[in-house]
Amino acid sequence: MINFNLYNPVNLCFGKDAHEQLPTLIPQGAKILMTYGGGSIKQNGVYDNVRGALQEFEVVEFGGIEANPEYDTLLKALDIIKSQNITFLLAVGGGSVIDGTKFLASAALYEGNEPWDILAKGIRTEVGMPFGTVLTLPATGSEMNSGAVISRRSIGQKRGMGGPGLFPQFSISDPTVVASIPHRQLANGLVDAFTHVMEQYMTYPTSATLQDRISEGILSTLMEIAEPLLKDPSDYDTAANFMWSCNMALNGLIQKGVPTDWSIHAVGHELTAAYNIDHARTLAIVLPSMYRYKFEQKQAKLAQYGRRVLGLDGSDFDVAHEAIDRTEAFFNSLGINTKLSQYGVDTTGIEKRAAKQLDNYGWVSLGEHKDITPADVEKILAMAI
Amino acid sequence: MINFNLYNPVNLCFGKDAHEQLPTLIPQGAKILMTYGGGSIKQNGVYDNVRGALQEFEVVEFGGIEANPEYDTLLKALDIIKSQNITFLLAVGGGSVIDGTKFLASAALYEGNEPWDILAKGIRTEVGMPFGTVLTLPATGSEMNSGAVISRRSIGQKRGMGGPGLFPQFSISDPTVVASIPHRQLANGLVDAFTHVMEQYMTYPTSATLQDRISEGILSTLMEIAEPLLKDPSDYDTAANFMWSCNMALNGLIQKGVPTDWSIHAVGHELTAAYNIDHARTLAIVLPSMYRYKFEQKQAKLAQYGRRVLGLDGSDFDVAHEAIDRTEAFFNSLGINTKLSQYGVDTTGIEKRAAKQLDNYGWVSLGEHKDITPADVEKILAMAI
Repeated sequence: MINFNLYNPVNLCFGKDAHEQLPTLIPQGAKILMTYGGGSIKQNGVYDNVRGALQEFEVVEFGGIEANPEYDTLLKALDIIKSQNITFLLAVGGGSVIDGTKFLASAALYEGNEPWDILAKGIRTEVGMPFGTVLTLPATGSEMNSGAVISRRSIGQKRGMGGPGLFPQFSISDPTVVASIPHRQLANGLVDAFTHVMEQYMTYPTSATLQDRISEGILSTLMEIAEPLLKDPSDYDTAANFMWSCNMALNGLIQKGVPTDWSIHAVGHELTAAYNIDHARTLAIVLPSMYRYKFEQKQAKLAQYGRRVLGLDGSDFDVAHEAIDRTEAFFNSLGINTKLSQYGVDTTGIEKRAAKQLDNYGWVSLGEHKDITPADVEKILAMAI
Repeated sequence: MINFNLYNPVNLCFGKDAHEQLPTLIPQGAKILMTYGGGSIKQNGVYDNVRGALQEFEVVEFGGIEANPEYDTLLKALDIIKSQNITFLLAVGGGSVIDGTKFLASAALYEGNEPWDILAKGIRTEVGMPFGTVLTLPATGSEMNSGAVISRRSIGQKRGMGGPGLFPQFSISDPTVVASIPHRQLANGLVDAFTHVMEQYMTYPTSATLQDRISEGILSTLMEIAEPLLKDPSDYDTAANFMWSCNMALNGLIQKGVPTDWSIHAVGHELTAAYNIDHARTLAIVLPSMYRYKFEQKQAKLAQYGRRVLGLDGSDFDVAHEAIDRTEAFFNSLGINTKLSQYGVDTTGIEKRAAKQLDNYGWVSLGEHKDITPADVEKILAMAI
């Protein structure tokens, strides 16, 4: 088992009507900037619940944070924080709103002239402005981790940031919000969470026995709840298991003590960049081809997954192959295509362009063995078309 | 799924040589009271490692904290904290030393005249003196939770305390310490951790699918590592899985969203009180009889455990019975007897005395359904003799 530090001070308030705790979670007398996205919270009741719970506080609102939160938009919120003496941030939304709010928490206390430096220069946020979250779209785990990804479209960049100052003080996770999430987003969330686990698990057999079993537990749960969730997202317990699995997939726990892969995300990001295909769908496109291409290295772990999660029997070789096929079939069963050509896009030359782009980033070696080169990416994407 | 709040701000530093992080974890200039137990840390190298890492700090030592830490002993340490202006506590030991240090962290800031009131009156510790731990004996999970149990032998009492001020700031968990733990303590630790999970899992089927799977993962891991651990506790990866499983069994995670039992602990405590039998061994005595007595209510969950953890097949009834037998056989395989009469004690009337004692406490209803009365306890213990 690899040495690790596990530190996660987020107070996760999970369950129906958890928003009622808000007045006790936010410091008395705080002046709050409430951030949100396109306004779906005004349709699904979350806005009313949150404003109702914050009656005793002074609240300024900032809506319109985009999917893949935009730096230029966030600068406007930053102006409000500074000009109106905001003391607490409350993100009400999904991963994008929460990530954007993490940037604000960092930038509000940043002493340099150019907040983009936090991202461009990879400045770690040791202390941020205090903030909490009310989660409306489970998938990214951002409500319980200390990382964020911010886009700056004017220069075509998307960068990550992080640090212990970016943990939310609390996160409200009320599974009843799942009922109003569109079918497409639910399917995406299932694939996203499933692939998050796979990136931290599907490497090679390690001695981290317990971590493996926890990862397998999340994978089994996601497979078990997928069909009922898509059929009836208003079923509370199904929604709760979905929300909790998404959180556990990326709150940091299962990566402790193990090697991780993340090559599927790296390659998938290029498909989103090229075609604007939903993030989760790019993962579903890349995963099967990645595992088939790296079959030899991953065979033993694929076989473990096949036996423990999928209940397969047979030789390592057969079980491992069957495990990839079954995983692809699982994605398809959610209505998610696993071939790029099924997305109605011009695939000509994408494998070369994506590989070139990854090369440009200087990411010459992906995967748990750091041995996936741009030339490999080209072959993997050719298999995925 | 039952609503829950998950909050655990402990920085767990897990792995070989994790003690090297100590100088960065303790505030510069701190005056440290280092607490420990009977002195085994001077044999196994932990003392030298810790003192070596603390060279830049002023350190006062307080050894001699007993198993089941004694209030009167701790008062002497409290005097030192106050008279020598200690600013940070460092517990180096197992659950008893850590629990005792938690009491000190609370009592040092307590404003009342009589520190025993914290326990007698159940005063919750909102803010405690800062402290960290260096774990030498995995089993209780105390290194990553905010509870403690303190004994006061002069009045025959043993009481619990807790609160958010009792989370350690950090805990050093280095699996190499496991190599020097005596066989008897290792077997106890396995049973203790196993039963901790069972108390939070073996109730009835719930909708908390993921929590169930995580609990099953810990149980499977403990069963898998038990024999190799007892054979060679110096095997690093086996020791690491043992240490990590003990932590995960009682760091609070698996109790979230589910009903819990804890009747085995309540009854077991009476056997320790009556005969001074090791805590873990009392659990091994009570568990099989408890599950046989409550068979009807627990049958469905026993069957789930039998299938998923033990790989059994058959009807719920058959699998559930077999699951209890196999669990008892697992404890026996560790060299731990599961009948009270095997412990060389006079068992006459114990079932009546223990039931009477529980009745005296006012604990008239134990278990996940709160339906186990002292009369039931009498019958359960009669089965366990």
